[in-house]
Amino acid sequence: VLLIKIGGGKNLNWEGIGRDITVILGDEPVIVIHGANAFRGGLACRLGHTPRTVVSPSGVPSVYSDDAAMEVFLMAYPGVVNTRLVAALRRSGVDAVGLSGVDGGLWVAKAKKAIPVRDGGKTRLLEGNLSGRVDRVNSRLLRGLLDLGFTPVISPPALSEEGEVLNTDNDHAAALTAASLSITRMVSLFEAPGLLRDPDDEASLVPRIPGRDLESFREFARGRMQRKIMGAAKALELGVRSIYWGDGRGPHPVLDALEGRGTVIE
Amino acid sequence: VLLIKIGGGKNLNWEGIGRDITVILGDEPVIVIHGANAFRGGLACRLGHTPRTVVSPSGVPSVYSDDAAMEVFLMAYPGVVNTRLVAALRRSGVDAVGLSGVDGGLWVAKAKKAIPVRDGGKTRLLEGNLSGRVDRVNSRLLRGLLDLGFTPVISPPALSEEGEVLNTDNDHAAALTAASLSITRMVSLFEAPGLLRDPDDEASLVPRIPGRDLESFREFARGRMQRKIMGAAKALELGVRSIYWGDGRGPHPVLDALEGRGTVIE
Repeated sequence: VLLIKIGGGKNLNWEGIGRDITVILGDEPVIVIHGANAFRGGLACRLGHTPRTVVSPSGVPSVYSDDAAMEVFLMAYPGVVNTRLVAALRRSGVDAVGLSGVDGGLWVAKAKKAIPVRDGGKTRLLEGNLSGRVDRVNSRLLRGLLDLGFTPVISPPALSEEGEVLNTDNDHAAALTAASLSITRMVSLFEAPGLLRDPDDEASLVPRIPGRDLESFREFARGRMQRKIMGAAKALELGVRSIYWGDGRGPHPVLDALEGRGTVIE
Repeated sequence: VLLIKIGGGKNLNWEGIGRDITVILGDEPVIVIHGANAFRGGLACRLGHTPRTVVSPSGVPSVYSDDAAMEVFLMAYPGVVNTRLVAALRRSGVDAVGLSGVDGGLWVAKAKKAIPVRDGGKTRLLEGNLSGRVDRVNSRLLRGLLDLGFTPVISPPALSEEGEVLNTDNDHAAALTAASLSITRMVSLFEAPGLLRDPDDEASLVPRIPGRDLESFREFARGRMQRKIMGAAKALELGVRSIYWGDGRGPHPVLDALEGRGTVIE
């Protein structure tokens, strides 16, 4: 099984990704995990709920999710983006089934009601947050769908043990999902050629990172790219052997990534 | 298998429905099909897209779906309402999996791009409509999920043969879904005790309708209730034997309906 994680940008080539997946399905089953951050952000503004980005004490940004933000999240992730992506993949000939982490208890997360945030020079606790990290994957539904020949297409939210719907870090959830199915190869697509030493210079691509050196590359990573590095480290720790980062905007996003044209971590 | 169709009102007792389903699951598998009309309507207003209701020449109202309306539709149906319903059912102990008619090619509909509408005294064609009636159900995904012990929870949209996402009549889709699985008993819950001779008088409940007399009861049905009568007629035509209409607001919506406390059609 190949796990393909797709970012939430607005310039991804869904058609090309769909075509690539049909090629890969000739050899092995595929699971897709995707984001919807750009759509969510635009929708939140239209609804007058500007997303509130908070920064953790270690400098990693994330979106604070109160009830209103969670409603917008559901509209964007399992609502518009997942449904349109499943329809696009089906048009490419992929027998896709859309899921969220709630379905079949797939992603169980621990709610982190109060989050430490950097506020000026100080750290304080922000309450009422509806997010949490996936700490258990219930792969029974995925195995069942793969056995039937379907391609699962998964988006957040996750569900807490208490049954609350939670925003969750997709890179971490992808690592645990891969581990739950003993997946050894993952592709991660976003709107850049791979990890760049200089985010403003696409020629500064890092072609290969040995897993043991991953942490040292966090210095090149800005913003959300830091989460991708942490997610990749988690995936390697849990048994994934090769992670292919690639450009989701090109003509063959998945096949190019697998051929090592982005950043390969192993 | 018992098929439970739930309307899109805002006063339904989800918790009671969840409790009832856990009781029924002791005897037989369950499939849920639900709407989200009230939520969709409120959201459309918040986004400045007031839903446009059109009336067919035979007097049946429906919502005209252009691109913008379809986006709001996806936010409401597979987005907020389906995900929250699956989470609520899981909190009740139901191993629920949310689906839309797009997933696994479940509901294939024929797009009705131009719809005849009554405009004053005349009938004219309205173009650019993204809706259509389900004419084929691909039950493979449902059978697979039921075999694995999951409870599928389905909402529109459907998918056209060309892969377009379409709004669709839920009562008609429910009838075809029942037929595709040789289901003989259906429950339909909404915000009324059943079919009323006088919509403003809950004491005017019609307790029983022989299937052959169903058409004659269309005179009592106002607005969307007409679709329920047409959907029930379709279900009977396709082999369903008993249809239980009941009040989704009560303490035991499903069990009360099955005990004949609403309107029983057979």
